[in-house]
Amino acid sequence: MSGPIKAVDWIDEKLTLLDQTLIPLEEKYHSYQEVNLIIEAIKKLVVRGAPAIGVAGAYAVVTAIDQAKRENLNSDQLEDLIDAIGDARPTAVNLSWAVERVRKFLPSGRSAVLEEAHQIAREDRLSGDLMGAIGSDWLIEKLGKKPLTLLTHCNTGSLATTSIGTALGVIRTMQSRQALKEVFVDETRPLLQGSRLTAWELMKSNISYRILPDSAATMAIMNGKIDAALIGADRIALNGDSANKIGSLAVALACHEAGIPFLVVAPESTVDRNLQDGSSIHIEIRSDDEINYFKGIQVAPIGSQTFNPAFDLTPAKYISAVITEKRAYEIAKA
Amino acid sequence: MSGPIKAVDWIDEKLTLLDQTLIPLEEKYHSYQEVNLIIEAIKKLVVRGAPAIGVAGAYAVVTAIDQAKRENLNSDQLEDLIDAIGDARPTAVNLSWAVERVRKFLPSGRSAVLEEAHQIAREDRLSGDLMGAIGSDWLIEKLGKKPLTLLTHCNTGSLATTSIGTALGVIRTMQSRQALKEVFVDETRPLLQGSRLTAWELMKSNISYRILPDSAATMAIMNGKIDAALIGADRIALNGDSANKIGSLAVALACHEAGIPFLVVAPESTVDRNLQDGSSIHIEIRSDDEINYFKGIQVAPIGSQTFNPAFDLTPAKYISAVITEKRAYEIAKA
Repeated sequence: MSGPIKAVDWIDEKLTLLDQTLIPLEEKYHSYQEVNLIIEAIKKLVVRGAPAIGVAGAYAVVTAIDQAKRENLNSDQLEDLIDAIGDARPTAVNLSWAVERVRKFLPSGRSAVLEEAHQIAREDRLSGDLMGAIGSDWLIEKLGKKPLTLLTHCNTGSLATTSIGTALGVIRTMQSRQALKEVFVDETRPLLQGSRLTAWELMKSNISYRILPDSAATMAIMNGKIDAALIGADRIALNGDSANKIGSLAVALACHEAGIPFLVVAPESTVDRNLQDGSSIHIEIRSDDEINYFKGIQVAPIGSQTFNPAFDLTPAKYISAVITEKRAYEIAKA
Repeated sequence: MSGPIKAVDWIDEKLTLLDQTLIPLEEKYHSYQEVNLIIEAIKKLVVRGAPAIGVAGAYAVVTAIDQAKRENLNSDQLEDLIDAIGDARPTAVNLSWAVERVRKFLPSGRSAVLEEAHQIAREDRLSGDLMGAIGSDWLIEKLGKKPLTLLTHCNTGSLATTSIGTALGVIRTMQSRQALKEVFVDETRPLLQGSRLTAWELMKSNISYRILPDSAATMAIMNGKIDAALIGADRIALNGDSANKIGSLAVALACHEAGIPFLVVAPESTVDRNLQDGSSIHIEIRSDDEINYFKGIQVAPIGSQTFNPAFDLTPAKYISAVITEKRAYEIAKA
């Protein structure tokens, strides 16, 4: 179902990533044999999306084993490499979760680690299909079976996962059930994951879409143009508080005010079972340059300070339901 | 008080505009002798901001008179030129208001029309000072005299007016009263009037600022980083409903939820006394290209459809007060 896009793959014993910084202009793949280059790729968002980063991180542990062998590193040095992979980005729980999960297989050798990484990818694929079904069931039950206009933020599709996606997987499933009219795609500043990536995936899948500035989402929602909004998540606390791409909170607030459903769609691995609520989730603050320059073009006075958080936290009270591969957890009333 | 920036001026019998599409990279002025070029400049946002467009439109009527004389147009043709100026952009009420105000002086001749246009500019300058004082008084009365962090959206300063500005004029006045800590400047997609123009004005005035993606405003407000938000307006209905740059509504909603003041600052000429409420305000929809391209760089799949409204409507119930040059109209409770 995920079509031809493979954002993360293991080819010829090497981690292979589709370079998402180049989409929609180029479809280019890179292979990696060095952990520091993978970490750089994760930081630069060559690969992004919590589930995709998780799978990439798991495969990167195999790369670390190969690199350690090639460079005669001792086991402490190997553990340091693996630690560095897990720390490449701080907010998404899936990365450290996947790295720790495959790390346990180190004593059993490289092939056991690789098999576990493949297993994480397989589970991600399956969980995408399950989330798609559970989320679609939920929407059709609440809103009736009719073509819906759905709004989404950032990219949560095949580029962000190794499956049909999380929120975008539900949207794809709605399309396959003839229950989708159109998708409103927030462009998702500053890195435009919506206009660059989600629009590209939808175009490739012949799904009707419309790109809007993030700041227009509230108007679209409050003016009755949208039936429901769906986003992914990078970390979910036990009470349902969800960290996701900056701008998610504004969408949630508008849906709450308009009385339409706001769904968070993410695999169970996104739930951080150490967190009762989201208040202690570490929010990554990114560089001034992401705001002050656009593809190398200066768009603000030189040296401007910025406020550039990569994520925000949506309190559970604004979330109608969290959809996982297991079930729909209903939180707030839509 | 407005410093050296003159966005709209009348020099050597010609309307002169600072080309705001080039800021912050270049500070370039154009002079106009043809109405169609002025209309094009207004449409392309060489000049923007409701009060500045109003003054530009008033001077453009003098240009129309000069052009009619040069080209031997009859009075019907002159009236057509003047109609076209008033229709250059549909949402801001100030443009048609200013054009109609000077048009009345046509029977008295060119110098009377020009004098009335100068008078509109003078009144705008004075009203900026008055709004600055009234808005600052309001904020200090409600929040106490301490350095505040204020958020603003789009550009409402000397570039948008012929004065110290509307919302940005209040912010400047707060600075001169030592009651300003820092300004959070929404970048204001798609045309980045915040990061390009407001940041540039604040930098020139040595006022401390920080640029943020529009989508981060809700988080900044809900997390307690902001004491109050201030915006301008393009058209205000009698009940207080206000049309302003797309994204204003999201800021208003967040302020409402966080319980902090949300102020609309605009001259009385922005109030459309024909409108009981905002429901019938015509919202300009702009081109797909503004979203799909960035300074000529493609950022979305070719041919993507968009939802690109230039403005949204903030219902009065989310507005703490409307500040004009006459008084603070208190609407909702902050």
